[in-house]
Amino acid sequence: MIQQPFGELEIGQVAVSIGRTMTETDVVNFCMLTGNWLELHSNVEHAKGSLYGQRLVQGSLVFSVINAVIPFDSSVLAAFYGCDKLRFLRPTFINDTLWAKIEILRLKDHDENHGVVTLKLESINQRDEINMRCEFSLLIRKARLDQPGVPPAVRAARVLSKEQNK
Amino acid sequence: MIQQPFGELEIGQVAVSIGRTMTETDVVNFCMLTGNWLELHSNVEHAKGSLYGQRLVQGSLVFSVINAVIPFDSSVLAAFYGCDKLRFLRPTFINDTLWAKIEILRLKDHDENHGVVTLKLESINQRDEINMRCEFSLLIRKARLDQPGVPPAVRAARVLSKEQNK
Repeated sequence: MIQQPFGELEIGQVAVSIGRTMTETDVVNFCMLTGNWLELHSNVEHAKGSLYGQRLVQGSLVFSVINAVIPFDSSVLAAFYGCDKLRFLRPTFINDTLWAKIEILRLKDHDENHGVVTLKLESINQRDEINMRCEFSLLIRKARLDQPGVPPAVRAARVLSKEQNK
Repeated sequence: MIQQPFGELEIGQVAVSIGRTMTETDVVNFCMLTGNWLELHSNVEHAKGSLYGQRLVQGSLVFSVINAVIPFDSSVLAAFYGCDKLRFLRPTFINDTLWAKIEILRLKDHDENHGVVTLKLESINQRDEINMRCEFSLLIRKARLDQPGVPPAVRAARVLSKEQNK
């Protein structure tokens, strides 16, 4: 959905992503990447005595993955603008599977070349619970970038591919 | 700072983290972890034609690292509650170094055992720019967890260590 320029997007448009299982590997890799080895995520024995009795998938990881599974097009997406009202409504456990649901809430003109698109972004798990919700805003181009940096041979092959798929 | 139980925290308390350089390795690892290989972050040639003329560090990665460098104590932190007013005020480029500054904005009672602490969380870079700002909320315990899952020999060694450091 976020594959069209700013002027072609409409309030109320909805899309759903593929699902993604939040594995133990993801949780450990995220500890490595962030350097945050909070025992709630990395110590099984500690987690048994914590609020939910088991390790939790990091909230920042849920947020990072759930906005990454939305299909974006590099020719229109200029930047991540911001996020409001982010809430973790339910815990995410290791091996939970998540799907992203998005709906365009607002479209706001930004400057000559960009608008800000605000999405309601929800993460839904295999128990049909909404485990995370936020309003997610992106800076979207009004005109597509014309394949920057693509060498002529790749560009020619893309034209050919398009013609063959007509 | 977020190492004390809910009742011991005070509005206006400030803390600053260590610095962390956002390297190219971090950017690539984050692409791998999220599965999002947006060319803005992963294609040097594409990025030359984009808004800032170079690859950007992912906003979700900046957010994930900057909240992870805050020192937390597992005995009081119960969960990541939510986030409001997250804005990326300036781009983060590869090899920028970031420091987190936090200040307690609000303290709200939640239930018998927890309160919600809301922090103003700012990311400051080596150019002295605030590149990211948000209001970051955590569920904090009113009483410390008593070292859950710690075997007696470790517990005894901790007591000895504390006595030696008096």
